[in-house]
Amino acid sequence: MARPRQERAEQTRDAILNAAAEMFDEYGYAGASINRILERAGVTAGALYFHFKSKEALARAVMNAQSESIVPFLGSKGLQRLVDITLIWSFQLQRDPMLRAGVRLTGEQATFGLQDATPYQEWADIMTGILTESAENNELQAGVEPRELAEFVVEACTGMQMYASVVSGRQDLPDRAVRMWRLLLPGVAVPAVVARTEVNPLRVRLAATAPAQAAGATS
Amino acid sequence: MARPRQERAEQTRDAILNAAAEMFDEYGYAGASINRILERAGVTAGALYFHFKSKEALARAVMNAQSESIVPFLGSKGLQRLVDITLIWSFQLQRDPMLRAGVRLTGEQATFGLQDATPYQEWADIMTGILTESAENNELQAGVEPRELAEFVVEACTGMQMYASVVSGRQDLPDRAVRMWRLLLPGVAVPAVVARTEVNPLRVRLAATAPAQAAGATS
Repeated sequence: MARPRQERAEQTRDAILNAAAEMFDEYGYAGASINRILERAGVTAGALYFHFKSKEALARAVMNAQSESIVPFLGSKGLQRLVDITLIWSFQLQRDPMLRAGVRLTGEQATFGLQDATPYQEWADIMTGILTESAENNELQAGVEPRELAEFVVEACTGMQMYASVVSGRQDLPDRAVRMWRLLLPGVAVPAVVARTEVNPLRVRLAATAPAQAAGATS
Repeated sequence: MARPRQERAEQTRDAILNAAAEMFDEYGYAGASINRILERAGVTAGALYFHFKSKEALARAVMNAQSESIVPFLGSKGLQRLVDITLIWSFQLQRDPMLRAGVRLTGEQATFGLQDATPYQEWADIMTGILTESAENNELQAGVEPRELAEFVVEACTGMQMYASVVSGRQDLPDRAVRMWRLLLPGVAVPAVVARTEVNPLRVRLAATAPAQAAGATS
């Protein structure tokens, strides 16, 4: 009897989180109303407050769910994996409400009194792990520290989505991600890795649709 | 008689803009009150609305004043000038209310219904101009386009100040700017320029205090 109840609770939590993401994405923190989240999720206020003790807790959960929508779906390794993450992210950000809302709330958090570094640090941790493996496999140039490069990539991606958001409604975000790697790779990777790393949006446009297979197959 | 009146008008406009910057920096757009701006600037509502027709117009003016606090004070040229701009910016952002407010409003503009690319594009234009000169002087590697690199630097700086803001209240922003250049320069500049370009916060800590002389003297 315990399992179905737990499953139902998880489904309810997911429904609330998805509804909240849609509202935060569209209206920002201040504009998102708890009543409309309840309505969209089809749950009671009691159910919502059982899972999330406040609107702020809900916003934090959305902010911290960003990497879940991308990272599990990749088969590539090393620097190629890092490139793939940023390219898939650049496509997903155009259509995944959870990711869009997470990014929007992270950038606007000062407006609702939060100062939460977790979303940045979670991405930086994931990228540091990948780059540590890269370094062990001699993919990086001497003197390039995995943590430093990871934080810089997170910073650059954060800024490029903001820039792309105001100039093109994020339509040109994949081009900006490609450009980042064209400028950055030659200074951080050894020549053989620069030569073999694919920085092609088409590669991950497929992966973003049918993740595990596509990215795994080409890496 | 025309000149003193015009001077007085400019002083009033500056006083309003400075008071607005302080309020926007501290409280964001929604939290900044026109009454407190008037009080701090010591002007009447009539004077404010003579110069700025709305709170939004005031926010736009603050957003678009960012580069004025840095660019005129530099004597260096080419890539060194670009490096200097980002390093001075990384110090100024810790204490110049106009710059801080401009950056905050630019990032939060969606919360008050704006989508203004001007602040990003103004920086990108300035940096493109510098990098075009760099390219003419053979400072850049083949295939590095001034406009592309300029936009990428703007994106990276935008993201790094947000990251620095939540992890250190921007205290480590100069270190992050230095790190950007350590990672980026080898991939975009020719070796001789990588070798001679100074990426040292001490160089511009001086310039940020006594701009024209210091940065000019060392370039």
